[in-house]
Amino acid sequence: MSSYETLLWEVDDHGVATLTLHRPDQLNAFSVTMARELEQVFRTDALADDVRAVVVTGSGRAFCAGMDLSADGNVFGLDETLRPDPAEFRAAYDQAPYDEGVRDTGGKVTLAIHALPKPVIAAINGPAVGIGATMTLAMDLRIASARARIGFVFGKLGIVPEAASSYFLPRIVGIQQALEWVYSAEILTADQALAGRLLRSVHEPEELLPAAQGLARSFVDGRSPVALALAKQLLHRGAAAADPLEAHLNDSLAMYWTSLGDGKEGVAAFREKRAPQFTGRASDLPPVF
Amino acid sequence: MSSYETLLWEVDDHGVATLTLHRPDQLNAFSVTMARELEQVFRTDALADDVRAVVVTGSGRAFCAGMDLSADGNVFGLDETLRPDPAEFRAAYDQAPYDEGVRDTGGKVTLAIHALPKPVIAAINGPAVGIGATMTLAMDLRIASARARIGFVFGKLGIVPEAASSYFLPRIVGIQQALEWVYSAEILTADQALAGRLLRSVHEPEELLPAAQGLARSFVDGRSPVALALAKQLLHRGAAAADPLEAHLNDSLAMYWTSLGDGKEGVAAFREKRAPQFTGRASDLPPVF
Amino acid sequence: MSSYETLLWEVDDHGVATLTLHRPDQLNAFSVTMARELEQVFRTDALADDVRAVVVTGSGRAFCAGMDLSADGNVFGLDETLRPDPAEFRAAYDQAPYDEGVRDTGGKVTLAIHALPKPVIAAINGPAVGIGATMTLAMDLRIASARARIGFVFGKLGIVPEAASSYFLPRIVGIQQALEWVYSAEILTADQALAGRLLRSVHEPEELLPAAQGLARSFVDGRSPVALALAKQLLHRGAAAADPLEAHLNDSLAMYWTSLGDGKEGVAAFREKRAPQFTGRASDLPPVF
Repeated sequence: MSSYETLLWEVDDHGVATLTLHRPDQLNAFSVTMARELEQVFRTDALADDVRAVVVTGSGRAFCAGMDLSADGNVFGLDETLRPDPAEFRAAYDQAPYDEGVRDTGGKVTLAIHALPKPVIAAINGPAVGIGATMTLAMDLRIASARARIGFVFGKLGIVPEAASSYFLPRIVGIQQALEWVYSAEILTADQALAGRLLRSVHEPEELLPAAQGLARSFVDGRSPVALALAKQLLHRGAAAADPLEAHLNDSLAMYWTSLGDGKEGVAAFREKRAPQFTGRASDLPPVF
Repeated sequence: MSSYETLLWEVDDHGVATLTLHRPDQLNAFSVTMARELEQVFRTDALADDVRAVVVTGSGRAFCAGMDLSADGNVFGLDETLRPDPAEFRAAYDQAPYDEGVRDTGGKVTLAIHALPKPVIAAINGPAVGIGATMTLAMDLRIASARARIGFVFGKLGIVPEAASSYFLPRIVGIQQALEWVYSAEILTADQALAGRLLRSVHEPEELLPAAQGLARSFVDGRSPVALALAKQLLHRGAAAADPLEAHLNDSLAMYWTSLGDGKEGVAAFREKRAPQFTGRASDLPPVF
Repeated sequence: MSSYETLLWEVDDHGVATLTLHRPDQLNAFSVTMARELEQVFRTDALADDVRAVVVTGSGRAFCAGMDLSADGNVFGLDETLRPDPAEFRAAYDQAPYDEGVRDTGGKVTLAIHALPKPVIAAINGPAVGIGATMTLAMDLRIASARARIGFVFGKLGIVPEAASSYFLPRIVGIQQALEWVYSAEILTADQALAGRLLRSVHEPEELLPAAQGLARSFVDGRSPVALALAKQLLHRGAAAADPLEAHLNDSLAMYWTSLGDGKEGVAAFREKRAPQFTGRASDLPPVF
């Protein structure tokens, strides 16, 4: 297991990991170090087969107050020398699409979260602003403390919503609500975010983390990691599919694979009225996509 | 009209067909025979021009208790000898994409339901579990009895949600709710399914079927079958369109066709304050797509 | 500034334009002239940099009663001589895809609305029927008077929903609600439309226009026009993206551009606890897409 400057990582005996953003004196502001460590934890530790689900929360009174604007110099981590003439903007980018100096840091984190083939639950314990809000969109479910405050504040800073939020936000809350929140750039209360369907549920502050961990356990106890992993991928692919046939071709493959693997055990256990003993591993998925 | 072992089929004088899953002693469990008959009824009987809409319900106290796990042997109807080495999995599938042994049975049914160019309404009268739940997703609207129970229970059996549900479910309830229900694999009450927007409405048990049939009649009485058929296709294509221009090119064609056909009669009837007499037929749609 | 027969256009000192459909004696029915003028106002006047947002409402007691069926002859504005044999329908269209006689008039208007890189708010003050309803779908938010009535009545006239509504409606209200409203073809009350998430909010009649204008001002005062414009485009592209990577590549470019432009001023102003002075212009967007 890795050791981190800005994160805490703990796995319980159900396989539920709790990942805590841990810069409490800076309201867990998103620094370049935190970005690198978040990408690493989702691309390494979280992939271990004894991790079945991840809960993400913040240390102290905030979830994540956004980009750390207290840093000197280039807060966005971008290489300013790359800015080309407008006429050459697209061409220059196409020549170096994966350049570290051009790709949005928040997006590198959310792509890593999204790629994890396991349930990820945001437990938003306090203010979640800017990247603190958009990073939760790549998680599968969002629950929050009644004290949470959520803000897509980019417009007030002269920048755009990032971290692939344009993919996630309309799929979660619909296009009308997404446009309103991005245009308004205001801080939402937990109740407003719940009414707009960004949040799955709102909890008393002290009950938030147990609720998130309990939900995660209920998702993985007695379930096939392979079935969960494929279901997560299928739902995202299916939501973007051109037609049901495309989804059918993918889910036929996934169904075929699982029905002859963990599905055999699942049906046997059901018939024998016993708990199933699944042996599939999320680290060994079939090449469905 | 065909005769079926596992289905009842009845058409009223409004052109509203009621299709009843009819294995009441097995809680209308989904057998290989039922799958074949469902595909047939949607690909043949339901296409007749005197059928204007279809209501689907279950005999007795269940809607459909899911795959019939009481059958001996290969309950998924798959050819187990086809399972290749993981490294050859995708390639083997690509060589035989429509092979009966690989394609998911539930998906063959939901593709047939989806292809019907007429309104289809699920009247969920009781438990709808597994394929009993996912088959309703390909129908246009879902209404339910207060006694209905709905479960996407796949994860508990070690398998994935099928029947092209990954296309339909996120479009109906959003990605967050879809992921939660699939991860949880629990049985939902009718009220939970209503709150999550899976259901359009919940009814007293004895009022369910009349409500579904009344809704179907209100959709087709005095309406152009061609306009309804094209609208159903347009909305599904439009939901998946890359941009509004793509939708515009399709709906221009559909508008052009209908405005010189049933639309002429519709405008004339409107001006003359009389009921329109549409002559278009759903069996004779223009090649818009 | 242009002068219009069927429209009123006024810009306040916040840059909020109010566009009024102005044929009050015809309930602002959509005529060929109004279509041409709407396309023009969104493609010319609204593009001026001193226009920051647009509110659209109707003169008198209606918003827009739909296509003007009182006109003689060809109410749809289509060239009837173009209707080919069904077998040649698609081919004939593909040979002349942009032909004025084939392309839907409402769609030409909604594509112009959608292309405006600024917030557009519908203030639905009364009946909005047919194209009067579908034109609002291309606007970013819809608020309404308690006296508003909204109807996707196409099915009763033998025609299909148009104006690229098949792209917009499912993204706003979900596929189940979209299908129901289009099948039913009935007139919805403001409360029904609010419950179905078509409307963002419902207001007392005399408070509607001030509410819409206040919302528009809150979106643009102290915000970067470039950031708003790119955010609008990103959210629509992202909603249709195949995966988060596609969104990430687009938002990286937009973030890169803004972070070195108005974003620099935004961060500086935030640190100095002063209002930002953005200099970017919506008429000078980078070629992100």
